[in-house]
Amino acid sequence: MRIDWKKITSSIYSKIKKEIESLDKKPILWVILVWKNPVSLRYIKQKERLATFCGMWFALKQLDHNIPEKKLIETIEEFNNDRNVSWYIVQLPLPKHIDTKKILRTINPNKDVDGFSPENVGKVMIWDNTGFIPCTPLWIIEIIKYLDINPEWKNITVIGKSNIVWKPIAALLMNAWATVTVCNSKTRDIRSFTSGADIVICAAGKPNLLTLDMIKMDTVVIDVWFTIVDWKILWDADFENIDIAGVQITPVPFGVWPLTVAMLMKNTLKAYKKANIGIKS
Amino acid sequence: MRIDWKKITSSIYSKIKKEIESLDKKPILWVILVWKNPVSLRYIKQKERLATFCGMWFALKQLDHNIPEKKLIETIEEFNNDRNVSWYIVQLPLPKHIDTKKILRTINPNKDVDGFSPENVGKVMIWDNTGFIPCTPLWIIEIIKYLDINPEWKNITVIGKSNIVWKPIAALLMNAWATVTVCNSKTRDIRSFTSGADIVICAAGKPNLLTLDMIKMDTVVIDVWFTIVDWKILWDADFENIDIAGVQITPVPFGVWPLTVAMLMKNTLKAYKKANIGIKS
Repeated sequence: MRIDWKKITSSIYSKIKKEIESLDKKPILWVILVWKNPVSLRYIKQKERLATFCGMWFALKQLDHNIPEKKLIETIEEFNNDRNVSWYIVQLPLPKHIDTKKILRTINPNKDVDGFSPENVGKVMIWDNTGFIPCTPLWIIEIIKYLDINPEWKNITVIGKSNIVWKPIAALLMNAWATVTVCNSKTRDIRSFTSGADIVICAAGKPNLLTLDMIKMDTVVIDVWFTIVDWKILWDADFENIDIAGVQITPVPFGVWPLTVAMLMKNTLKAYKKANIGIKS
Repeated sequence: MRIDWKKITSSIYSKIKKEIESLDKKPILWVILVWKNPVSLRYIKQKERLATFCGMWFALKQLDHNIPEKKLIETIEEFNNDRNVSWYIVQLPLPKHIDTKKILRTINPNKDVDGFSPENVGKVMIWDNTGFIPCTPLWIIEIIKYLDINPEWKNITVIGKSNIVWKPIAALLMNAWATVTVCNSKTRDIRSFTSGADIVICAAGKPNLLTLDMIKMDTVVIDVWFTIVDWKILWDADFENIDIAGVQITPVPFGVWPLTVAMLMKNTLKAYKKANIGIKS
């Protein structure tokens, strides 16, 4: 049974659109793109389409794939210092020759609407809401809210090992008093942590890792990650069988992207207010 | 069966002492103290004693308990701007009228040897080791190393809800490929997460929360928190019965403090090297 993400998404987008219409200036979403792989290009296109739909400018700064790390850092510092750029994102992943952590450290946390810089991730951890929360964790919380699930007293299992996705998710859910288990590829018996879970979040990139027999019928499955094998998109959860059985699951494929982008717009609006209306939380 | 923390601690201290002896300048440990409650005062005394033992200067800046938040922030900013102060700590907890998160945001991450500022906590999360790791998580890792336990394939359960202790612990253990569950006071059935755990870390502040029947005989119990009730120190784990039964457990009372302080010295040495020898990681 697919979670009606279209309903969630469209209600969020119409709210954002309305809010942007009421602003004095049309906000600009700056995107720095280095690695032009097919997935990133498709993602960027979607960001452009949705930003435009919401009434924002979309400004893409394309850099050469072979750009030296030092040069990329200089470019980011230009963005940090330019008073006309109030926020921006650096599209990940970056090419192999670049140290992603160094880049994340370079991004000015006050302009980091992706919420990937150490300071913003740390603020999620210590429950300080003056920063920007990464977009994927943000929409997962939105879905949980939409389903009217109170995380208190709930067991939630997260399967995955991508730092910028599941650690903030785990932290946000912990902040909301859920009991959270994080599994990875070196978990002895993943089933022992999924069979009693009220919510399972998959972010592992391992196709068909979660099957129907591993969960309860009233479990909610939120599948974040996908892998492309032989031109086919494969998700972490065995979507078809879980869907048919009536277990609530987020849709595939690319179902989650519009929600992630919606959260980016939300963060951008927060940044706009900080920069232009002087709202300080 | 008590984990021989004295052996661990003394070996760490003799290493630190030796390293400090080899330095050109005697480092200073600056401590800002606001709330002079009995536990903090005792803790500060221990920090002073151990810093002196290791050959460091100990400099205490005592502030009035009723200091306005704004004034405290100004004082911290003075520490941030003073080139003679390369690092410092603000002793927690702070009085109720002060917003701790605002204070943590004010501490310069490069001088924050306690590792409590958002940027440093965030660096633990995204596995960026250029920052300072909070001291309690650091010594827990030391104990696990000392016991020669490889966190890979292990189930580790953390019980607690103090942001600056258990979230970084959970993150560090996740970085080391452990499967980590974090329970809190709103966990439906804590036993279901302790009975299969290889390591249980208690940081809840609820006396006798963990009893012998909730764990395996080969579980390692690391008890971090204690509560004082009627002048008696009570720990989260039912120490006596677990100890007698032969399960490995960290000692009480105050057993963990010297280790925490040792980690503070370690962070201070890291800061010293960054400031004086120009080591940049």
